[in-house]
Amino acid sequence: MQMKPLMTLVALAGIGSLSAQEEGPKTYEEFMASSDAVMFTINNLWILISAALVFLMHLGFSTLESGLCQKKNTVNILFKNVWIISVGLLTYYFWGFNWHYPGDNWLITNILPKGGMAGYDAVDAVANQTAAYADYTYWSDFIFQGMFAATAATIVSGAVAERVKLTTFMVYSLILVGVGYTIAGSWHWGGGFLNKLGNDGDKAFYDFAGSTVVHAFGGFAALAAVLVLGPRRGKYTAHGVKPILPHNMPLATIGAFLLFLGWFGFNGGSVLSADPHLVSYVFVTTALAAVAGGFASIVSSWAVMKKPDLSMALNGLLAGLVSITAGADVLSPNEAIIAGMVGGVIVVFSILAFDKIKIDDPVGAISVHGVVGIWGTLAVAIFSDAAPLSSQLIGILSVCSFAFLFSLILFFILKLVMGVRVDEREEAEGLDVAEHGSPAYND
Amino acid sequence: MQMKPLMTLVALAGIGSLSAQEEGPKTYEEFMASSDAVMFTINNLWILISAALVFLMHLGFSTLESGLCQKKNTVNILFKNVWIISVGLLTYYFWGFNWHYPGDNWLITNILPKGGMAGYDAVDAVANQTAAYADYTYWSDFIFQGMFAATAATIVSGAVAERVKLTTFMVYSLILVGVGYTIAGSWHWGGGFLNKLGNDGDKAFYDFAGSTVVHAFGGFAALAAVLVLGPRRGKYTAHGVKPILPHNMPLATIGAFLLFLGWFGFNGGSVLSADPHLVSYVFVTTALAAVAGGFASIVSSWAVMKKPDLSMALNGLLAGLVSITAGADVLSPNEAIIAGMVGGVIVVFSILAFDKIKIDDPVGAISVHGVVGIWGTLAVAIFSDAAPLSSQLIGILSVCSFAFLFSLILFFILKLVMGVRVDEREEAEGLDVAEHGSPAYND
Amino acid sequence: MQMKPLMTLVALAGIGSLSAQEEGPKTYEEFMASSDAVMFTINNLWILISAALVFLMHLGFSTLESGLCQKKNTVNILFKNVWIISVGLLTYYFWGFNWHYPGDNWLITNILPKGGMAGYDAVDAVANQTAAYADYTYWSDFIFQGMFAATAATIVSGAVAERVKLTTFMVYSLILVGVGYTIAGSWHWGGGFLNKLGNDGDKAFYDFAGSTVVHAFGGFAALAAVLVLGPRRGKYTAHGVKPILPHNMPLATIGAFLLFLGWFGFNGGSVLSADPHLVSYVFVTTALAAVAGGFASIVSSWAVMKKPDLSMALNGLLAGLVSITAGADVLSPNEAIIAGMVGGVIVVFSILAFDKIKIDDPVGAISVHGVVGIWGTLAVAIFSDAAPLSSQLIGILSVCSFAFLFSLILFFILKLVMGVRVDEREEAEGLDVAEHGSPAYND
Repeated sequence: MQMKPLMTLVALAGIGSLSAQEEGPKTYEEFMASSDAVMFTINNLWILISAALVFLMHLGFSTLESGLCQKKNTVNILFKNVWIISVGLLTYYFWGFNWHYPGDNWLITNILPKGGMAGYDAVDAVANQTAAYADYTYWSDFIFQGMFAATAATIVSGAVAERVKLTTFMVYSLILVGVGYTIAGSWHWGGGFLNKLGNDGDKAFYDFAGSTVVHAFGGFAALAAVLVLGPRRGKYTAHGVKPILPHNMPLATIGAFLLFLGWFGFNGGSVLSADPHLVSYVFVTTALAAVAGGFASIVSSWAVMKKPDLSMALNGLLAGLVSITAGADVLSPNEAIIAGMVGGVIVVFSILAFDKIKIDDPVGAISVHGVVGIWGTLAVAIFSDAAPLSSQLIGILSVCSFAFLFSLILFFILKLVMGVRVDEREEAEGLDVAEHGSPAYND
Repeated sequence: MQMKPLMTLVALAGIGSLSAQEEGPKTYEEFMASSDAVMFTINNLWILISAALVFLMHLGFSTLESGLCQKKNTVNILFKNVWIISVGLLTYYFWGFNWHYPGDNWLITNILPKGGMAGYDAVDAVANQTAAYADYTYWSDFIFQGMFAATAATIVSGAVAERVKLTTFMVYSLILVGVGYTIAGSWHWGGGFLNKLGNDGDKAFYDFAGSTVVHAFGGFAALAAVLVLGPRRGKYTAHGVKPILPHNMPLATIGAFLLFLGWFGFNGGSVLSADPHLVSYVFVTTALAAVAGGFASIVSSWAVMKKPDLSMALNGLLAGLVSITAGADVLSPNEAIIAGMVGGVIVVFSILAFDKIKIDDPVGAISVHGVVGIWGTLAVAIFSDAAPLSSQLIGILSVCSFAFLFSLILFFILKLVMGVRVDEREEAEGLDVAEHGSPAYND
Repeated sequence: MQMKPLMTLVALAGIGSLSAQEEGPKTYEEFMASSDAVMFTINNLWILISAALVFLMHLGFSTLESGLCQKKNTVNILFKNVWIISVGLLTYYFWGFNWHYPGDNWLITNILPKGGMAGYDAVDAVANQTAAYADYTYWSDFIFQGMFAATAATIVSGAVAERVKLTTFMVYSLILVGVGYTIAGSWHWGGGFLNKLGNDGDKAFYDFAGSTVVHAFGGFAALAAVLVLGPRRGKYTAHGVKPILPHNMPLATIGAFLLFLGWFGFNGGSVLSADPHLVSYVFVTTALAAVAGGFASIVSSWAVMKKPDLSMALNGLLAGLVSITAGADVLSPNEAIIAGMVGGVIVVFSILAFDKIKIDDPVGAISVHGVVGIWGTLAVAIFSDAAPLSSQLIGILSVCSFAFLFSLILFFILKLVMGVRVDEREEAEGLDVAEHGSPAYND
């Protein structure tokens, strides 16, 4: 989504009506009785429904990741996802939101935001009634952005699955979501330097709903973590790659479809209003890119792997979605189809390539979110004039290298302090029994 | 849903306000600043949310069908569903939408529509701003209808499961969705001959959200395919019917509940606005018919089969939903309950009857969508005066016979060209390993 | 939600506009053409979307309960849930709704409501057009409340799972939902004595979306049923508690997340309008309490059980949600976090304590809904001045003791008449085969 209007405790006169501004501040009741209130209410409702849809993506990630991994690590993956949504939203409340959207509060201007807890004194009726944005309330903004925030750590969760140490990942994900994600996000959505490129923003980096600042951020953080962590034992042998099969394909399919559904809120809500033209347009480009990605990955993986592969088809849908996330409002439907198809082909070759170079990503998260996230961001410059290619490259480079380095350093420190990997016996036994003391499936 | 307003690139003056029409065309910005914009925005938002709910029905079908089939064919069913949503939406974009709603563009007037790609030049700002319907945008209409379109092929997918050849089904579903479904739909929703019955429409066929033009279309296409395909090996033996058990009942239950949820968008969105009375009314008739169907199928299947059968209960919910789809806006709540109960009883006896005559439908799709689809359409004439019985019969006969013949001929041609059935060894081994090279469940 | 405006067939003049009231009754068309219609339409749409979200909670309960139980009882649990939603909504239509919201129709004033079927004559156009509330239609109210109603029986379903006799539970749930739940609800939401505490309501019991009148009602009904029923065989042995492991943790996780999602409608819809401030506020307190509950239960169960337990984490999320249900609109975000955390700790110790005293609740429903429901209701008085502690205690005591006694007597009568428990052989074999004749999972 675009840079948010800054949180200001201005009078509601600022909402929607020019004439009202002349009349001075209103109470919430006066505002709600005015004609401006209806459009505000619709827009606000759509942001909230979008927040609920993005929340559902966490169930999508939980089921996709656990379905694509081995049976013996299922509880562990699900547990990590409950943890991520829990601490992700809490840290976003305690400091992340104000790091993400710092307004004028920077430690280092446009680069390092200054924190602070979300909210205003809830018992202060006046603040409650007047702390509003142009199209939705302060709390609608918070909950929508908060649901986004935990996504970054979830992406990593899939890539490091089946061998990461639980407690280490818990600390890692808390810091990645609370600190890393919000700093990188502030550069663009929070009004930081990526939003100031060119002549004070005339060449600003363009990333509508976060191909780079959400997905590629997660993908490159995952890449760093996987490099430190190493592959699952027994996957890369002297005799080549030994495939480790997904344990539950219906579960993975539920995950991919729920993510697809949630993306209507992820992209559609990033319109930041219920504007009829723009939201419907974004729904169409999002859906067309997704199915184009699914189609292209089915065809291309069939050509390469000589079989119709369901995992690739599911990752193709997701790749299509990531491909359109940066430009859902500026690409035409035809361009959305092309972008999605290219994403669907890229993801197949990327997944196969990472296996070639022995970077072990059990669910393909680095490819889907990292590699295709870059593609989606570039597609904005290729297909539209929303931003020049140079700005997109600057955005990609700065966010991805920051994500990679932040994750690398953090994970490396955790390796020294806590250790990052379960031991050989635990990995062989599976994390469900080794770490949680109970398998996911019983009679 | 009723016949759509034709797509016209008229000025937005046509949206909502009579007085505005006198003032001549407005830009989109002018329209959005007018008082007409708020109701337009609400209505539009509801169509989009409905589209998302109907999208979720594809996950419902995926899980219902795979849950009710054998373990060894799970990946195959899921893969087919990813394929259907992908090519279904793409073909709908490239030609289906304009076949479905041809306006005045017919090859054979009111019978065979003339195609064309969806959309207008997206970079043409004026077209973007003015291509609008009375209550929602062009793209909202497209995405809502596009999500419906793939449903027809999904219904067939369940009936032919566990023995159909994958590549053949992929070609079949593409043509069924792109060509067959949209032609039959154009007869009613596209303003074709079913909409012109009587004195230029005073006795028009009535099918609110598609008991016939969606569900019975799919059911009768499925019947034809199953007749060509034959039953699964080993089901009908010299010693009677050998039941083939569903492999995962939680998965099937997830499917039925998601379909129920999606139906709030399927029927509720077919109001084509957020009209408070009508949408709430449709929610109530839809939900009451569904639970009445569930209740009646539980009782009647228990009486016949001497046990409480979960599959029948789930199919009863769905039968209740199909029963009310044609008349959700014209039946009273009491009538909705009766219609749902009759549907719930019909589906039990229909499923048992098809097994008697050795027509093998693993998930009961022909009964749920085909037979009960007819019942739902007749219920409109029985309980309301929305259309005379004669018109409903004409609609049922023309759509069902077309669906049956279209599917029969298409499937027969594909049988000659590609073959339609996997060989005995592949069927015994299961399509997951035989066609996809990997089972759905692993350790 | 607060007490509903009484259903009245007043003219639509009563909707929204004071000036309109002077002009006398309007038709529905006149109302919809007026400026009052837009806010009414938005509010109404949100109630309907909330109803759909609450519907989804039934899938959440189905999957949570079946996932946490043994494999051999899966079909039985799913079947019970299809039954509950079916008869729950039907009985609510035939008499429950008017028992729940009796208006002035009481058999015993403010204690025992007088029933009657929902609805007005649907073919009466005038009634249709004028039977409206301040912010939504009659049917929107019905469907939203109807989706709530079945919840009470669903809570019991989990607690009595794996040994209750199916037919007995079917009768029990029908009467509990239709009679018990609606009577208790009428005391508060229906304008009964809990709403009249103090000087005609100035110290009214406060229970925003039903921590007590929905959740604790269900939890205490469950407790009574479990006491009559006894524990599962083999759980409490001479050598201590023998844990009975959940059969499918991904299924249980799907359930918990769907319940979390549905709660946005459960609490958010209980605002009874789309008021931007209040709905967004309720979304935030609801989500923060949920994740605080998840976090606190992870930490506290880890401390006690010495392992990271996924079941406890899931129940912690739900406990957080139940904790905020009574006060979602009056607690601050900080207070919501505290309330959720306390709930998350309570649920861990409560589940362990019930096992200590050999009260066998396979899914923890008595703790999550009963014990934490009380906590959530008390939190209103502790953190806010919405109601005095005395009123909250009166509400808790009257509703919980009524639920307990109603359930105890009903279950005891059913024990005498039909028997409440399957026999030893059936319990060992599992209810799926013993009662339904087919296992949930097959090849």
